[in-house]
Amino acid sequence: MTENKVLGDLVTLLGGDIVKGPDTTLLEKHTHDYCVHGRTDVGVMALVFPRSTEQVSKTLRYCNDHGIAVQPQGGLTGLAGGAVPVGPCVIISLERMRAIKELDAAAGTITVEAGVVMEAVQKAADAAELFFPLDLGGRGSCQIGGNVSTNAGGNRVLRYGMARDLVLGVEAVLADGTVIDALRKVIKNNSGYDLRQLFIGAEGTLGIITAVVLRLFPKPRSSCTGICAVDDYPAVLELLQRVRSGFGSQLSAYEVMWPDFYRLGTVALGRKPPLEEGHGVYVLIETLGTDPDADQARYESVIGDAIEAGIVKDATIAQSQREATELWAVRDSPGEWSNGVHWPQLGFDVSVPTGEIGPLAEEIGAALKRRWPQLVAVFFGHVADGNLHVSVRMSGHHVPELDIENEVYGIVAQRRGSISAEHGIGSLKIPFLHYSRSEAEIDLMRVIKKAMDPKGILNPGKLFGAGARH
Amino acid sequence: MTENKVLGDLVTLLGGDIVKGPDTTLLEKHTHDYCVHGRTDVGVMALVFPRSTEQVSKTLRYCNDHGIAVQPQGGLTGLAGGAVPVGPCVIISLERMRAIKELDAAAGTITVEAGVVMEAVQKAADAAELFFPLDLGGRGSCQIGGNVSTNAGGNRVLRYGMARDLVLGVEAVLADGTVIDALRKVIKNNSGYDLRQLFIGAEGTLGIITAVVLRLFPKPRSSCTGICAVDDYPAVLELLQRVRSGFGSQLSAYEVMWPDFYRLGTVALGRKPPLEEGHGVYVLIETLGTDPDADQARYESVIGDAIEAGIVKDATIAQSQREATELWAVRDSPGEWSNGVHWPQLGFDVSVPTGEIGPLAEEIGAALKRRWPQLVAVFFGHVADGNLHVSVRMSGHHVPELDIENEVYGIVAQRRGSISAEHGIGSLKIPFLHYSRSEAEIDLMRVIKKAMDPKGILNPGKLFGAGARH
Repeated sequence: MTENKVLGDLVTLLGGDIVKGPDTTLLEKHTHDYCVHGRTDVGVMALVFPRSTEQVSKTLRYCNDHGIAVQPQGGLTGLAGGAVPVGPCVIISLERMRAIKELDAAAGTITVEAGVVMEAVQKAADAAELFFPLDLGGRGSCQIGGNVSTNAGGNRVLRYGMARDLVLGVEAVLADGTVIDALRKVIKNNSGYDLRQLFIGAEGTLGIITAVVLRLFPKPRSSCTGICAVDDYPAVLELLQRVRSGFGSQLSAYEVMWPDFYRLGTVALGRKPPLEEGHGVYVLIETLGTDPDADQARYESVIGDAIEAGIVKDATIAQSQREATELWAVRDSPGEWSNGVHWPQLGFDVSVPTGEIGPLAEEIGAALKRRWPQLVAVFFGHVADGNLHVSVRMSGHHVPELDIENEVYGIVAQRRGSISAEHGIGSLKIPFLHYSRSEAEIDLMRVIKKAMDPKGILNPGKLFGAGARH
Repeated sequence: MTENKVLGDLVTLLGGDIVKGPDTTLLEKHTHDYCVHGRTDVGVMALVFPRSTEQVSKTLRYCNDHGIAVQPQGGLTGLAGGAVPVGPCVIISLERMRAIKELDAAAGTITVEAGVVMEAVQKAADAAELFFPLDLGGRGSCQIGGNVSTNAGGNRVLRYGMARDLVLGVEAVLADGTVIDALRKVIKNNSGYDLRQLFIGAEGTLGIITAVVLRLFPKPRSSCTGICAVDDYPAVLELLQRVRSGFGSQLSAYEVMWPDFYRLGTVALGRKPPLEEGHGVYVLIETLGTDPDADQARYESVIGDAIEAGIVKDATIAQSQREATELWAVRDSPGEWSNGVHWPQLGFDVSVPTGEIGPLAEEIGAALKRRWPQLVAVFFGHVADGNLHVSVRMSGHHVPELDIENEVYGIVAQRRGSISAEHGIGSLKIPFLHYSRSEAEIDLMRVIKKAMDPKGILNPGKLFGAGARH
């Protein structure tokens, strides 16, 4: 079929308000995410902006009947190219499906269409005196459908889990246009397979999510924040055990910063370090609770005990929201690297069991230094979640990124870790999937893909690479 | 193939220590669970008691090659017949795979084989000063493989989630004997489809779980328990909002008891009611925290505020573990019904959104009374989880169970609830699956089943009924 025929058919099917031709402005907007700049000439035949699940269904049925690839898109804030078209296709953008359908305070749920922006969900919850905990840098642009399709993580995973843990119900459209309406508001439902799970984190390769029921929580009433300095990674683990036991489910962040990262986030940016340089490791610890006075006293007592026990060598505890923000600024300093202190950089988002994060950081650091003494790498991470970030400065040398990636992922694989803790596979990490998943696992993924999308029309070229279509 | 040939082949393949013939004693033990007493003459060809994943794999490969049905079994404590054979088959019991392979305190994980009994996991965690929260009545017999295969719930879902939320890694054997080794100890892993989810709650129809990595938590250091009396269901919801907000993530139980249930659990059993009879609804509220003194003070202050606000009409708060146990005895009284006060009974385990639990209880009560005035039904439930239990006394009348079931499930379906919140479908609830799941959903389940088990050998006749094999 010619591109014009497809565009014409879709306009006839859905109307000119819903279907647009591939003009330059639209193509430029819809062929890149935050990391991957795709080509605009891959052969986009049409862009569909449905306003209803039925229109998504009609589009998919048409494309499936004619074997036309479909590229689902949300807020285009991904970091792995999952929403970037790589070949001839029809783009379906969910951006017009942005109704907040219901907030049920008693059930603690909000039901929203896929195109609702994350921040809009947060605000709707807040207005009802409730709390939607999923949060990340792209909150003002990223859409819930994309967040769920990529199983987004972000700032509060330790306390509230990832997107998967926050989804009670899903409505999704299968490749052939069948609508799976599982928009239920129940927490417990052991009646057959949990079909939600097929769509969460599948990056749009098994169906297109059109709406979700999300969990809401009571608003936290207190927040305590501090930074502790300890000697080494064993002390990081000992302190973690103490704060897990002392704060229980109120522990909401345990962010570890190694010295080179700490320097980058403080003196290198002209910021006074909250604790002196020279310690082995720095840990930012946050709790979220319900009783401001009692929680702050408890925080100070648990950290005080750790100082007395000789585990914490120095500590600073925020006494105000302003001081807490200053402490978080050190941890969040990667957002300022692009001013030149550490740019361009090659970032890694890997996970291993928590006890191995320290050894992993050392091992990666040593391996990089051995092969490429000129490289500067810094380390930081959500340690209680087993999530390590590594950032390698790419200026001033000529090491190919691929070599560095294979080096790092090879080390992660030996520890049975994940090469993508949060960011997904998309197109960017396809070459490295085998480091995290066995051949039997990838084969089973293909079995599921083939069963649910026999013609391979949904987001082809992602997750498995071209092979997924065969 | 003759039954003898199959037995002989399996003995040759695995040895006489692993494979047993269908003698009467074994058949009697392996053809029933807690609720379903199956026939012993359905044609069990052999019972396999593997000691390793490799032996499970060999058995499945053999059975798949020869198109022989396989009945996976754990502790046989299910309530829906999921592990009870319904036709000619080879039984695979995981009971000998009971190694605790590793406890990783830093990661907060325990890695166990499928046949480990739940209580053994709880004890191993406790010995390491950690806490495994999954807990239910069958804890001394039920096996982790079964708990995960049925997505068990139980006593602490509100605080810690169901089995699905506690599983980090899974090892499972597919119908053709392929081993999927996803025994990872990482919390974050966005590298392709989350294959764990295919096996959790699938009741052994998509693969046989042979080992799992489970999450462990810090031991709670404090527990506060009380019972509050309120006027009606709107007050139940208002109180829930207060305790959610006041206790945050420490809220661990919110158990609602309607008056007929309350009477059954107190005066009918010769027990003094902790609060006087005559109130509209009773709520048992429990918190688990980290600071005994502060948490008890907080508990008393939150409940005190609710009394002052006129929401709670009367309350009793346990001042000791003994008193807490006495309060829980009222809620746990169904275990004593079989002494005659309410026996035999027909139980329901349904869920709807939390706000609708009260109206649902009323509606079911009224409908039963209208059609069968002679029936006595009592109501209680984990309301914050949206889970309602209904128990209908079956003595002294002749109403067919099926009629009562269709009446109750029909009402649940109108509210988009689940006909099986915790217990699964097994064989017992197959006739009612359609009340909870749409045709499109059941079709998609069949697509997945067909893709993963093309010959339909795994636990046939469960979940979908006979149709699953076609």
